Amino acid sequence: MTTLDTTSPLTDSEILEGHRGGKLAVNLTRPLVDARTLSIAYTPGVARMSRAIADDPALAGTHTWAGRLVAVVSDGTAVLGLGDVGPRAALPVMEGKAALFKEFAGLDSIPLVLDTTDVDELVETLVRLRPSFGAVNLEDVAAPRCFELEDRLVEALDCPVMHDDQHGTAIVVLAALRGAATVVDRAVESLRVVISGAGAAGVACARILLAAGVADVTVLDSRGVLHVGRDDLNPVKRTLLGRTNPRGLTGGLAEALAGADVLVGVSSSPVPEELVASMAPGAVVFALSNPDPEIHPDIAARHASVVATGRSDFPNQINNVLAFPGVFRGALDAGARRITERMKLAAAEAIARVALPGLRADRVVPSVFDPAVAPAVAEAVAEAVAGAAR
Amino acid sequence: MTTLDTTSPLTDSEILEGHRGGKLAVNLTRPLVDARTLSIAYTPGVARMSRAIADDPALAGTHTWAGRLVAVVSDGTAVLGLGDVGPRAALPVMEGKAALFKEFAGLDSIPLVLDTTDVDELVETLVRLRPSFGAVNLEDVAAPRCFELEDRLVEALDCPVMHDDQHGTAIVVLAALRGAATVVDRAVESLRVVISGAGAAGVACARILLAAGVADVTVLDSRGVLHVGRDDLNPVKRTLLGRTNPRGLTGGLAEALAGADVLVGVSSSPVPEELVASMAPGAVVFALSNPDPEIHPDIAARHASVVATGRSDFPNQINNVLAFPGVFRGALDAGARRITERMKLAAAEAIARVALPGLRADRVVPSVFDPAVAPAVAEAVAEAVAGAAR
Repeated sequence: MTTLDTTSPLTDSEILEGHRGGKLAVNLTRPLVDARTLSIAYTPGVARMSRAIADDPALAGTHTWAGRLVAVVSDGTAVLGLGDVGPRAALPVMEGKAALFKEFAGLDSIPLVLDTTDVDELVETLVRLRPSFGAVNLEDVAAPRCFELEDRLVEALDCPVMHDDQHGTAIVVLAALRGAATVVDRAVESLRVVISGAGAAGVACARILLAAGVADVTVLDSRGVLHVGRDDLNPVKRTLLGRTNPRGLTGGLAEALAGADVLVGVSSSPVPEELVASMAPGAVVFALSNPDPEIHPDIAARHASVVATGRSDFPNQINNVLAFPGVFRGALDAGARRITERMKLAAAEAIARVALPGLRADRVVPSVFDPAVAPAVAEAVAEAVAGAAR
Repeated sequence: MTTLDTTSPLTDSEILEGHRGGKLAVNLTRPLVDARTLSIAYTPGVARMSRAIADDPALAGTHTWAGRLVAVVSDGTAVLGLGDVGPRAALPVMEGKAALFKEFAGLDSIPLVLDTTDVDELVETLVRLRPSFGAVNLEDVAAPRCFELEDRLVEALDCPVMHDDQHGTAIVVLAALRGAATVVDRAVESLRVVISGAGAAGVACARILLAAGVADVTVLDSRGVLHVGRDDLNPVKRTLLGRTNPRGLTGGLAEALAGADVLVGVSSSPVPEELVASMAPGAVVFALSNPDPEIHPDIAARHASVVATGRSDFPNQINNVLAFPGVFRGALDAGARRITERMKLAAAEAIARVALPGLRADRVVPSVFDPAVAPAVAEAVAEAVAGAAR
């Protein structure tokens, strides 16, 4: 065994070796050591367990693994920065996701990659599989189909469903913005925010910031600012019109960023240095595209007070892993049937609280390895469920 | 910890406790200990693995868990002796099955219980999920739907598919019959065999015995002997007509068993003692219904030379666990796309060979805990694949 080097670049052979045989295994929670343990876990004993569930279906939630099992579901149409590589090539990502669920929240999960991109078929498949799991983490489904798919699944399934590329990102962005606002001594609600990108992450970020009370949010897609004069918007973008862009801006990133307080980049479109320079004093820049941020963080830092990226090799890594393990753990612990806006806001608050001690411009979010994050998020989410029920 | 008692009856509380929280867990094959291991298993490293699979789909078989993952699939329509209890109540059985796959063959597997009993929908669902697994173990699907479902899945999926209630049972019955034939000093081919039951297990037993060269096989369903004069047979039973019942028997179990050498009971219909007494000298009785054998083994033993049941508390336990772990392991090891009759026959031979040392009337099959069985079966099955390819 060699000591792992955390600075040299990853090599192809190291990555291939790290995935050989897959990254997951299914194990027994209790050993089968003799005829008695075998006859409890399988015939004849298991028949009594099945009979008990047939008589009282609620026992399926407590006496099978399904009650705590997350299905990590993808059709492989928007995999990381790779795009539509298909379900087989998406599987390593879903295995990685399952590994993170276990490592950070102690949750069991199984990757389910589907060889269809039809929303009806995806919904139908998961409805048929419903007795097999307790929650659905949607992953790497292309926009705008991901919005319809999530909405339909939330309606069709009586269990927590969350598209992580939307809401995991949005939760961590809100948490990081709370940290950054404290650093620059501003109230989050007062910030003028520009979101570059109107895909899964951009739309969800806009929604959670609005829900958190941020009054001035402007969103751009590849054709510029979303405004009421645009006639080329899909229905999801259109729903943002009435609630965003209060200044009635038109044009592109230059028009939007001039004097703005915050840039959230979730678009892969490069942002020139001079546009960051045009932002208000004490600006906050989250350049979240992976692997290439919209602007190099060192360049952004010449003009901005707080800079964050999605990368582990720069300060302030904004990564969904701060959110999704605790969100699902909290939802399952509380027996929630849905993941509500209230639960997402509570998750963001919890992450921000964990970051508070030692908060600095280069540490507005906790480390992804901070073991306090997932339990804090889970507790806050479960409390939000309980609070809503009261 | 108390020492496990292997003789006292299982209690309900012991069984419930043995299933609490489920019997399976998903674990990581490699620990995530730091930023480097995280960046290999997840972003950014995993993107290179996904890219590699997109370029060469064969890598999905070696660098994800799907290549060695068995989906244990049921619609919950024929669960043990309970019948149609539905997918939720079937899940503990499927978890138990997955536990056995791991324990006996080192294979990872995931239970998938489906909330539909429509064959088209079941096939469609598994076709959509195809990239998620490497083989399908069908379980506890009611006859005669199980025959069509298996046939359709074998056609639709380019991976091993086996309905264990059919072929797992048949393989072990053939293995046990080889052992019993040796004990009573007969050639298997010369035996006159009566199969009471024409469901999943009965039909598969008839087929494998015919494939193994047994010339005189007679099958009965709940209305009596299958013969050409019957006009009430489903298509599956009808296909047996031309190959079974060479004596042209009609009537019921009394007519079939008089002078017969072997009774394979897979029907739950009680067999009166006097019928066993009417069998030929040196008779073999496999009373396999669970939990209540067609005839109590002690009573059968008054007239038969070899008696076997499905129960662990009597000698000669004929249990599928002797077959399915090794069959799937061998098929996956060999990269087989189908589980053929040749592979099933090889599996039965392998089980019979393991039983040979110390073969006795009360030990015609190996113990289900014999660790030599699954590797021997896997090797024989893999060799059968290689032999067929030569």
